Amino acid sequence: MAGAKGLSINLATLRQQFDLQQACEACAKHGLEWVAPWRDQLAKVGAKQAARIIADNGLRVTGLCRGGMFTTDPDAIDDNKRAIDDAATIGADHLVLVVGGLPAGSRDLAAARRKVADGIAAVLPYARSAKLPLAIEPLHPMYAPDRAVINTLAQALDLCDALGDGVGVVLDTYHLWWDPELVPQIARAGRDKRILAHHISDFLVPTRDLLNDRGMMGDGVIDFRGFRRAVEAAGFTGPQEVELFSHDWWAKPGDEVIATCIQRFNAVC
Amino acid sequence: MAGAKGLSINLATLRQQFDLQQACEACAKHGLEWVAPWRDQLAKVGAKQAARIIADNGLRVTGLCRGGMFTTDPDAIDDNKRAIDDAATIGADHLVLVVGGLPAGSRDLAAARRKVADGIAAVLPYARSAKLPLAIEPLHPMYAPDRAVINTLAQALDLCDALGDGVGVVLDTYHLWWDPELVPQIARAGRDKRILAHHISDFLVPTRDLLNDRGMMGDGVIDFRGFRRAVEAAGFTGPQEVELFSHDWWAKPGDEVIATCIQRFNAVC
Repeated sequence: MAGAKGLSINLATLRQQFDLQQACEACAKHGLEWVAPWRDQLAKVGAKQAARIIADNGLRVTGLCRGGMFTTDPDAIDDNKRAIDDAATIGADHLVLVVGGLPAGSRDLAAARRKVADGIAAVLPYARSAKLPLAIEPLHPMYAPDRAVINTLAQALDLCDALGDGVGVVLDTYHLWWDPELVPQIARAGRDKRILAHHISDFLVPTRDLLNDRGMMGDGVIDFRGFRRAVEAAGFTGPQEVELFSHDWWAKPGDEVIATCIQRFNAVC
Repeated sequence: MAGAKGLSINLATLRQQFDLQQACEACAKHGLEWVAPWRDQLAKVGAKQAARIIADNGLRVTGLCRGGMFTTDPDAIDDNKRAIDDAATIGADHLVLVVGGLPAGSRDLAAARRKVADGIAAVLPYARSAKLPLAIEPLHPMYAPDRAVINTLAQALDLCDALGDGVGVVLDTYHLWWDPELVPQIARAGRDKRILAHHISDFLVPTRDLLNDRGMMGDGVIDFRGFRRAVEAAGFTGPQEVELFSHDWWAKPGDEVIATCIQRFNAVC
């Protein structure tokens, strides 16, 4: 059971196999101490019942996924406040923000980036009152059109600088591994106390689908040990959270997926 | 015919439809003044015959594609020297370098990046003697595993700084459009006299294939006019070179592809 210590499972990884209760029971059975649910999983049972399911299985919550979508959701500010409420209800360490891509028909990246900054600023006082940190997740540049116009760690940290307290970053191997500035920017994130989460999944070669072909750790090209060294040197020693969007892994039994996550976490991360 | 002024066609765009001679004849017929051939197209007829075909059609050459592959080709140094010879033979303005991805089985990006710097340094004296500039092309981060470990314009310009004279960069909309540092780095490239080429193609949503689903200008999310303003403000007013790797466009008649390139170049670029 000690093999799962320091690992969190983002429940998107199991979303085709399990509902929230089944996922939490399976994670607990495999010795996990942490999970990261998604809001659609909470919505099916309500946040209070979700909190009970998580606690009854002896689990704690790294992040709630997700708030954000400031560029494309006209109701984004209110929706992010509801997400903050839900995150507080389930005792999440932070709320993950996937900030949103270009609005339909727009080619104005700079305007979309300003809208993100304004959106987070509008939500931040509410998050601070709830003592619920907002975790900006820079996504791989291939998601700039339709998911997130924050695409490098430096850009996310510049935004944190502008926003002040109550906001930090998710360091996700899949999104950041390629960045020539990665190591110095992780060090900067640590100095500034901005690191809220450390997500893991691998980049496959070939990648056959931009969204749903992420790899199990060890199956792709990412140097997880090197990434971890940089994160730990920057002072963050929280759980590593595996988050796999993968048609291949969604097609396998949930118990096999969890067991493989634990095995690979210990072998290569 | 004036509609094609300032446009170059990278002949990868027509590689399924035409051989070098057919492509040059078709481009000339449509009023183009510039093309950019690939080395496999030269190899089929020999560089001297290729030079005659290009000249006989009244065409000039922007770049020869491609040298590079320093990380994966054990013969890279000699092969790049042969590419420089070929580029000089056809009167190319520059040789495009696609520098190479991670070697098979490697996860050491830093080592691959050092190998690229060493490789270009080894070839550079030969390029200088031939008065043939080497154009480093930073590729989109999604190509870091298997095509190029140079992934941002800042990184390419840092490498140029380290290497000195005789080397510059390709600014390709497809690879660079997402970069939060794009505008200041294009300005830097201009100040340092490093801009050798301006490539154009669009980023489609969704992108169904990482390699061969590039879009015709106007069909995706890139702001070509904004990109062009930054490039021209930096002092580069050379041809824009359309380079489409696209199963969709390879399936259309070559004349239709060329006509569409010219029409879109005038409409949105």
